[in-house]
Parts: sequence; C-alpha cells; structure tokens
Amino acid sequence: MIIELIEGATEEQRDEVAKLVKGLGYKPTYVQTQRGEYFVAIGKADFDIRVVGHHPHVRDVYRVSDAYKLVSRKWKAKPTRISLGDGVEVREGGLSLMAGPCSIESEEQVRAIVGHLSQCGVQIMRGGAFKPRTSPYAFRGLGLDGLKMWHQVAKEHNIKIVTEVMEISQIEPMYEYVDMYQVGARNTQNYSLLHELGNVDKPVLIKRGISGTLDELLQSAEYIFANGNEKLLLCERGVRTYESSYRNMLDINAIPTLKEKSHLPVIIDPSHGIGVRQHVKSVALAGVIAGADGVIFETHPEPERAFSDAQQTLNFDESKSLVERARAVFELRKSFDLPAES
Amino acid sequence: MIIELIEGATEEQRDEVAKLVKGLGYKPTYVQTQRGEYFVAIGKADFDIRVVGHHPHVRDVYRVSDAYKLVSRKWKAKPTRISLGDGVEVREGGLSLMAGPCSIESEEQVRAIVGHLSQCGVQIMRGGAFKPRTSPYAFRGLGLDGLKMWHQVAKEHNIKIVTEVMEISQIEPMYEYVDMYQVGARNTQNYSLLHELGNVDKPVLIKRGISGTLDELLQSAEYIFANGNEKLLLCERGVRTYESSYRNMLDINAIPTLKEKSHLPVIIDPSHGIGVRQHVKSVALAGVIAGADGVIFETHPEPERAFSDAQQTLNFDESKSLVERARAVFELRKSFDLPAES
Amino acid sequence: MIIELIEGATEEQRDEVAKLVKGLGYKPTYVQTQRGEYFVAIGKADFDIRVVGHHPHVRDVYRVSDAYKLVSRKWKAKPTRISLGDGVEVREGGLSLMAGPCSIESEEQVRAIVGHLSQCGVQIMRGGAFKPRTSPYAFRGLGLDGLKMWHQVAKEHNIKIVTEVMEISQIEPMYEYVDMYQVGARNTQNYSLLHELGNVDKPVLIKRGISGTLDELLQSAEYIFANGNEKLLLCERGVRTYESSYRNMLDINAIPTLKEKSHLPVIIDPSHGIGVRQHVKSVALAGVIAGADGVIFETHPEPERAFSDAQQTLNFDESKSLVERARAVFELRKSFDLPAES
Amino acid sequence: MIIELIEGATEEQRDEVAKLVKGLGYKPTYVQTQRGEYFVAIGKADFDIRVVGHHPHVRDVYRVSDAYKLVSRKWKAKPTRISLGDGVEVREGGLSLMAGPCSIESEEQVRAIVGHLSQCGVQIMRGGAFKPRTSPYAFRGLGLDGLKMWHQVAKEHNIKIVTEVMEISQIEPMYEYVDMYQVGARNTQNYSLLHELGNVDKPVLIKRGISGTLDELLQSAEYIFANGNEKLLLCERGVRTYESSYRNMLDINAIPTLKEKSHLPVIIDPSHGIGVRQHVKSVALAGVIAGADGVIFETHPEPERAFSDAQQTLNFDESKSLVERARAVFELRKSFDLPAES
Repeated sequence: MIIELIEGATEEQRDEVAKLVKGLGYKPTYVQTQRGEYFVAIGKADFDIRVVGHHPHVRDVYRVSDAYKLVSRKWKAKPTRISLGDGVEVREGGLSLMAGPCSIESEEQVRAIVGHLSQCGVQIMRGGAFKPRTSPYAFRGLGLDGLKMWHQVAKEHNIKIVTEVMEISQIEPMYEYVDMYQVGARNTQNYSLLHELGNVDKPVLIKRGISGTLDELLQSAEYIFANGNEKLLLCERGVRTYESSYRNMLDINAIPTLKEKSHLPVIIDPSHGIGVRQHVKSVALAGVIAGADGVIFETHPEPERAFSDAQQTLNFDESKSLVERARAVFELRKSFDLPAES
Repeated sequence: MIIELIEGATEEQRDEVAKLVKGLGYKPTYVQTQRGEYFVAIGKADFDIRVVGHHPHVRDVYRVSDAYKLVSRKWKAKPTRISLGDGVEVREGGLSLMAGPCSIESEEQVRAIVGHLSQCGVQIMRGGAFKPRTSPYAFRGLGLDGLKMWHQVAKEHNIKIVTEVMEISQIEPMYEYVDMYQVGARNTQNYSLLHELGNVDKPVLIKRGISGTLDELLQSAEYIFANGNEKLLLCERGVRTYESSYRNMLDINAIPTLKEKSHLPVIIDPSHGIGVRQHVKSVALAGVIAGADGVIFETHPEPERAFSDAQQTLNFDESKSLVERARAVFELRKSFDLPAES
Repeated sequence: MIIELIEGATEEQRDEVAKLVKGLGYKPTYVQTQRGEYFVAIGKADFDIRVVGHHPHVRDVYRVSDAYKLVSRKWKAKPTRISLGDGVEVREGGLSLMAGPCSIESEEQVRAIVGHLSQCGVQIMRGGAFKPRTSPYAFRGLGLDGLKMWHQVAKEHNIKIVTEVMEISQIEPMYEYVDMYQVGARNTQNYSLLHELGNVDKPVLIKRGISGTLDELLQSAEYIFANGNEKLLLCERGVRTYESSYRNMLDINAIPTLKEKSHLPVIIDPSHGIGVRQHVKSVALAGVIAGADGVIFETHPEPERAFSDAQQTLNFDESKSLVERARAVFELRKSFDLPAES
Repeated sequence: MIIELIEGATEEQRDEVAKLVKGLGYKPTYVQTQRGEYFVAIGKADFDIRVVGHHPHVRDVYRVSDAYKLVSRKWKAKPTRISLGDGVEVREGGLSLMAGPCSIESEEQVRAIVGHLSQCGVQIMRGGAFKPRTSPYAFRGLGLDGLKMWHQVAKEHNIKIVTEVMEISQIEPMYEYVDMYQVGARNTQNYSLLHELGNVDKPVLIKRGISGTLDELLQSAEYIFANGNEKLLLCERGVRTYESSYRNMLDINAIPTLKEKSHLPVIIDPSHGIGVRQHVKSVALAGVIAGADGVIFETHPEPERAFSDAQQTLNFDESKSLVERARAVFELRKSFDLPAES
C-alpha cells in the first residue's frame, strides 16, 4: 500500500497516519522525495481501504500487489518526467538520445564527440570516467580529472552528462560535474550504493544486471526511490546467454513489459545489447518501435582506436544515421498511438 | 568449398569433378536441388582454387569458412526467393505475413480466420493439425482429417498453408494439403526428419530450437539443403531463459545476424517470442524494423476459447492492427535502405 | 488420478470403470503396460475418492497432483526395477555401470572395449551406431551393420547393449540387437518417437534435453509409459549454459530431485555432463554420492583417436579407476542409508 | 608474467626490475602482499625469459597465459593455506566446515548455534549481520551491534566468524569482529570493494556471481590479490538458470575446474546451491567427493522460524548428520588420492 500525504503535512500529522497504519497490522516506511511524502506500508491483513483514504492528512492511497511499490505503474498511471535542466527532459512520449564513447580518453576526443552530438541535435552525452573492468590490470578510466575536463567542454555546448558511479565515495565529488548518474550492470544489486543515491537530487539511470530479472531491476529502482530520489530511468542492455554470436542478448520483450509495469522512462542500450557494430542500428530501431523512451549508444571519432568496446562503437557517420532513423521510427510510432491517446 | 556444376552435367562429368576434388584431399558430397547441382567438399588442405574453378564442368566455386556451407551468404550473395505458387512469394525485400490459430479446431473456426485473412490481404495461414504437446494427455490436434478440411477452405480463398510436420511418416500424406512444412522448435535437431524433408519439393520453415544457437539453426537448414531441398526459411521464435515475466525471450539480435550469415529468408514469430498477448504487436514491429522478411503470428476469432496458446493469441481487431502497422514499418524500413541499394 | 485395475479385468469391466470416471467429469486414458492396466484420469471436479476406490474392478486409486502421473513417486512409492535379462538389473539400491565409446567404429574397437568391461565387471555397454550430428557432413555412425557386429561380440561376453534410436523406422530393425534403447538429448521432445517406444517391450533410457527442465524429462517418460512401456530410466547429462569452461553444466541437483519426484531409476552421464576428460571421474563420483542409481560414461582404447567426443573419453586405466571408486563411494552411501531403511 | 622479487628488495632494486620489464615492452604492476613482493607484467612481446629470471633481484619468474595471473595455478603449484588463528586453517588436503544461520537474529539464537557447532567440532561460523535484500522493505540484519554480540559469544567458544561485507565503509568497523570477510554473489564484480579488501590482512571468501563465469570469479580474486591480500577463498554457490525446481543450479563442474585453474581453496555452498532443505546434504557430499576444500551451509535451531532462507536451512540433527557424512566422504576421497600424492 502506498499512502500519499497531503502537502505540507506536519510531523505530528505524519505520526498520526503511521499510527493508523500500524494499527491495521502494516509496517510503514516513511519516504520523502523531491515530489512528495509517502508511506509505503507492507502487510497482509485485510481492511477497508477507505479507513486510510478518508483520513484528513492523506491525499490518496493505492493498493499495489507488486513486490516493488513506488516504481509500479499500479499507483502512478501518469508517467514520470525527468528534467536535466535547460529544457532537456526524458519522458514517455519523447525520444531521448544519449551517445558518446565507452571511455573518456582525452580533451581532443571529447571535443570531437561534443561537436558531433551538437550537429545531430543530441543533448545528452554518455562516457566513462570511472570504468569497471574485469581485469585489475586494464585501463580504469581518467577518473575525476577526466570528468572535470569533460564537464567543462560539455557545458560550453549545453550538452548534459550521464556517467557511471561505482562507489559511494564518488557520489559527492562527482555531483557538480554530472547531470545524471549511471548505475552499471555489475552494480545493479549493490544495495548500499543504491541506498546512497536516494539522498541525491540528480537523476539516476539504472542498468539491468548481467543476468538480472525485470523484477530485480524494478526493486533496485525501488531502493533509490524509497530513500528519497524518484528521478529514475530504467535501462535494458541485454543479458548473458549461451549464444556466442554476440556479446549479450538484447531483451526486446523488456521494453513493452517495463513500460507496462512501471511509470519510469525506459531506455535501450543497443551497443551492449548486441555488441556487434554493424547491427547496433537495427537493434536500436527495434527498441524505439517497441516503445523505448530513449536510446543510449556508443560513438567515437575513430572506433578502431577506442580504449575499450571498439567492436561495438559507431563512427560519426553511423551515429548520424542512427539518430536520423531513430527519429523517423519514433515519428511513425507516435502516429500509431495517436488514435488511442486522443 | 561449394562447387556449382554446369547445367546438364552428365554423370561422367560429375564423377570427373569428384575425382579432382578427392585428389586435392577433400571429401565431396553431391547435392542436387530444385535449382542446381553442387559438390560440398570438406577438407583442410591448401590448394590453388583456380584448379577447380577453371574446370570445364564447373560453373563456379566458393570457399566457405562457416561450419554450414550451402545456407551461408558467403557463397550466395543473392538472397533466396521462395514461391508458394499463385504469385505468393517469400523473399528479402518483401514482407510476408502468416497468421492463424495455434490449433485447427473446426471448419467454422477455419472459415472465420480465412475470411479475416482475406480481408487483411494476408496470403499465408498458419495452424496446427498435428500438435506436439508436453503432456501425453493434452489435445494433439485434428490430424490429417483436419488438414484436409483446412486445405479445402483455404484453397477456395487462395490462401496458402504452413503447418508443422512432426515425423517422417507424415510427410507423404500431408504433401497434397500443405504449401509449406514447418519444423517445430522441439524437432529442430531431429536430423532424420530434416534429412527426409530434403527429398520434398515444397518449402520448409525451420524454427530455432528451444535453446538453440544460430549456428545450430543454420546447420539444421544445411541438413535439408544437403539432401536436395533449398526452399528454406529460418524462424526466430524466442529462447528459454531464467526470466519469468514472459514465456520466451525473443532474440531480436538474431534477425540482423541471420540475415548477415545466410541467404535464406528470416521470419519472426512474436507470439511464441514473448507469449504475452498485449505485447505481441510491439515485438512484431521490432522484428520488422530490424530486418525480418516476414512475421508469423497467432490469431483466433475468440482467443479466450482457443484450445491452446490462448494467452498469446490476438483477436481479429488486434490482428488487423498488427498487419497494418507491420506494413507501415516495412515501408519506412524500405525507405532507409533505398540509398544503399541504388 | 491413477486407477489401477484388478488383474485380468475384462473389457466390459474396464468400460464400466471408464464410464464411472467420465460420470465424475474426468477424461480417462486407458494404459496397458508390461506390469498392469491403468486409467489415467484428468479433470478438476471434486468428488469422494472412495467412490472409485471401492469399485470391485479397481485394485487401487491414487490422486497425483503432478503434471506427469504414471512416472510420479506420489502413487508408486516402491521404486521400479528394470531387468535386462541374465540377472542384469537396474534399480534403486544398486549401482549400474554402463560404459563404452561415443561411436561404434570397428570390430577391433568393440572387442577391446568388451574385454575391458568384462575385466571390470561392467555389464552394460554404451555406444552409438546411429549418431545424431550437428553437421550433415560429419560421420553418422556404422548403422545397423555396426550394431549387428557389436551385438554378436557383446553376446559372447554376456554384455548388454544400450544405444540411441533416432527415428521410428529404426525401432523395429534394432529390436533384436539392443537390450536398452536410448533417446538422445536432441530427441527428448520428439513425441512421435516417444509414443512409438511405448509399444516396445525393452527398456528405454531417456536423456534430459539440451536445456530441458526436469518436468519435461518426466513428461517425456510419461509419453512412453502412457503408451504401454514402463521400463524407463531417466538420465541427467548436463544442460547448456553461458559458462564456457566446459561443454555442459552437469546439474547435480537433478539427482536427488528426480529421485524424489519419480520412482524411475536415475542415471548420471558425467562424460557429456562436463565434457572434460580429466574431470569426468570427479563428477561421476559426485553423482553416485548424491544418489544416482547408475553411471553411463565414455571409454575407448585410444581416446585421442576416437571418431567423436575424444576430449571427454577415458582410456582404460581411467575407466577402471572410475569403476573402482564409484563402487567404493556407493558402498559408503549405502552405509549412510542403512538406518533409514531398516 | 609474474616476477617474484627477492626477500627484502630495496626500492632501488625494485625500480631496476621495473625498468627492465618496461624495456621489454611490458607494463608492470607492483604487488606487495603478506607473503611476498611481485610484479605482474602485461604485454605481448616475445623475449628470452632468462633475461628476467637471471636478474639478481628476481627470485623467480613465471609465464602465465591465463587472463588472471596471481591466482593461477600455473605459477603457484603449491596450494595456498589460510590460517584463521588458533590453529584453524583452510587448505587443500583438509576439509573446513562453516555453518550458521542466514541472519544473526539474537544472542539466544547465536548461543544455540555456537553450542551446536562446538559439539560437532565445527570451528567456523557463518551468519549475516549486514544482509543484502532484494526489497528495500525487508529485514537488513542487526548490523554492527549484532556482529559485536556474535563476536563475543563466538570468542568464548573459540569459534571463528565469516560474514558478508557489503560496502567499503564497513570494512574498518567490522575488522575487529570478523575472522574472514565474505563478498556476496551480488557484489562479486563490485571492483571498488574488492580493491579495498586488498588492503586488509584478513582472509576473504569470494562467492561466484549470480550468473558469474569461473573466469570472472578468478578475476575478482585477482583484484584483491593485486592490491595486497592473498588470503583468498573461492566459493561455488550455484548459478541462475531456467530450471524452476530449485533456487539455483549448483555447478559441480566448478569444483574440479577451479581446483585445476587456481591454487586457492575452493568452498562449496550447498544451501544456496540448491535452496531445498531436504537435498542440501546430498549436494554437499557431492561437492566433497568432487574435491572441495570446505563446505559452508545454513543451520538454525528452528529453521521454520528463521528470519530468512527458512526453506534451505537445516536443523541441528540434519546439520550434525551432514557434518559426519561429509567427514566420512572426505576420508574416502583422501584414500583415493593417496597413491597419487605419495
């Protein structure tokens, strides 16, 4: 059960509601986010929901049978809009494109990519400053210095930044230089990190785990939401299987399913989802027609020379073509939905 | 190595080529199909390919490094076109729609569906007369009698039939009443059945195995081709994974990858690929934009009353909408490819 | 519900029971095996089971909630014993060893292996006469002639034969020369083949599918049982996963789980289960301590020269050591179970 | 390449070796652990290894072709022994038993379990003070206070403690109260946490990831070793698959394979590996006969009342039986290995 409190509820009023809920045999968790105050109440007893709904300090109440609550579409039919500032927004009904290199390598590289994105009208740049690497001897990224340089260049062109945060101690120093945090596939169930990201007032894009279920992804989002941050995005990036023709198996089913289950925007990552450069575009368009609210993909001025992920990174011509086609596919999808919406 | 013989080669000429190939340390398999005569030669020795290519009885020769040979795009850049008669054709550059019920249930049901398909301009009807069922106590289909009735009704409306063959002894009695045989996911590696389908002069649609690799699917097609039948279609229908939100995980990556690896048409089955009725359409469109040459899906006048697969079967309104949108998406995809082709 | 009929029930008496069952809203399937006559009745209505149990032509009646019925331990607590003749028996409480090459290659090879097995006291020999191969160009076995030769040699030494049957048309010609049929992993859901094996009065060892579930394996056994043959063995041989350090992942959990679910003997195949020669022994012993009723493994006089599966085949020294240790582990396991059994 | 330095090498001598290595085109990483000083050198150039081996400050040098280096058995044939103090040791050739509850719940519970372990001669107790939970609303453990209480009770009975560390900030406060840190399956690729655990002088037990490969597990161990801590244990705990009869699929193949690949001790976790109480014992014994150096399992005075993992936790009778049988199986295994070792 999710109980939305009235605006400006006092502590006393809050306690009163908590007491009522406990009296019904439910365990309330108080949640305060950028957009409201809630109790998430867990329990199994049967009772007349109007007892809660009619309470003067309660704005609304919802039964949510899913294991995750706050991120469920069962209580929040209206989809979440996430603003990155300067009019850049990620939301259902829009198509947000995010592109950039696997790793931030140099100012020259960053300037080239920022220029390319500006030309294509892409407003959000992805890239790794801190890189999780399977081997301890591999390149682990330029770190905070790289991020600062990147931020400087991106700002000049009004490009927003999304980049991975790998540990709690990085959240604070990164804060000034990022517009969106990313939680990587290997950290999707790093609950301590998720909990801390609940204290931050910047959007977080959460990648599905290496072999994660959709319910686990939604529960990971719930962790952040339950600790105060509801600016969340879900990202499908393929899962591990036995098939060796590609790096991962992009789960296209996840797109319409996540859209049905949750009110959060859903982003598709075709670069990791297939990991084969010549097919990234096809898979990206599949994601758009299937209902994705955005695409995040890898591009580099010279993919063959990229420090990492060379085999799945697009050059600028390929990137431009993906952007144009994704927009055309999105327009077609919007035309399908029109009658249903009006 | 694939050696294409000249048209009308005599047995003597053929033997001469075989002898040459053996002399090079290769093991030749003679293959005669509806469209030509070949030797597939397996070996590892190094030699000057012109020795074979310039032989007077040889039309052309190709090195194919893939484990599968005859179905590889490495020797046959021009994609295969498959005619079902009366101008109905499956081919790269077209979009073949195939729809119908999981099981053929009654003449009334068949007439309703045939009428619906005619209205939508769908020329190929799917349906099960012989049904592979996990439990021996479940409905196993109407069998040959059902197929004959179906054939009669379909013929009246010039609708072509694709249906599953489960065993060798069914091939012959079914022959007169089907336009395309289907090999189901549970029989994809039933090599005896595949071998026998090489003796038939009707197209065969081969489904990927429950957890089959793309290479296994291509090798299964190779079995049929190597025994004489090159009218083959590949079908992606989802694979088994740990994710329990849907019946299977449709592998969208398979579409562009199979198109790259093989010259055979690639069909997507969104009904089994996700198994969730309300999302079949999204997944079907994803397949079309990603490059599928056709879509095969389940429809029924009253899905709730279907003998099997009720939860993934579309009603006629949903089916009509899928058909219209698939065509619109296909037109958009064609517009993308135009510059590249011209 | 499984209804066991009295011995020697007449057709009239049978019909009477069927009528009673239908009257309760259940659909009866009549099953006659080597050991009895049954009705398997499928339905959902609630009724007093004594109505059936007290019927004079009914010996006993059991409610079975599993999807599979006749192979479930819920009705047949006493485990199945399977005799291969000449005192060779597979059963719970025993340890049946089965060994031999991947493929039957020559009389010399067969004689060597038969001699080795005799020395070790192994009474059952495995080997492939008909080989399912992924590529149509690979060696497909010596066929019926090879089987006849093998049978001749094995008979001289009183060794029993288990070998794969790939299609219905092979069942009859193989009959005279095999002591146990094997259904391979790729044919586990070839329901037509399973159905026909119900008509045979020889044991059938059924391998789990490439990525098969335990329930599917049990349903495949149910197919054969429901058509008249209850001499069945279940075989765990590893499943396909993403892990590339070995050929398959042997599912050790399957051993105690299948023993709990079914009254049929459970055999472990460590050769395919790991596919790495130096670890076959460890995995085999794990299966024995976990409760397997038998082990089937690959051995060859010169594994490096075997036509197939060279990398997972033991030489005779390794094979002898496996046999000795398996027996020692089995003795230890029996000592554990003693108090429970007495 | 791993270069072991002479004991007591000065900084100057070290720099000299580093310079030599760089001169060969290799990138050296300096590693100092409790047991020695090394350079791990990554590169591809070909050179005469004696150039390095004969250098006066180099004790020994090894080529290691695996992606992981320091944890590979290719350079360190002698297996690692790990001391927990007071004569408690984990090592190849021994059998370390570790048992305890999923979560530490109360002093009463801890006292009961400590008493039980003492009776059975089990010297290491597992238990969760900080619990990673899929849902943010579930019980997350008693935290540091619980750990302190547990430590006090365990110390009285000379029982060692292994418990999960979830984040970097917990390492330091936990230090005084644990004998071995555990990295859980969801944190196996939390590289920041692994890196920090390299700075600690206490053993670390690393669980395989939810769907982790063996190579990833070994690379995770490499992370810790490369940052200075070589007291490491590897733990197989089952992986996620499509099979729904159990919680995870215990990968028995992993036991002999990890023993072959690495010199680190390998522990089996049958509780998570199958997740079904009545089969935990069978799976544990399978692990022991297959070569595990230890078993970690869940036990609780009243499993039905446990805060978490009730369905896979043994009561004390079951636990005692597991311990006794595991020891008997281990003795049998030792008897097998004797000839090979002598």
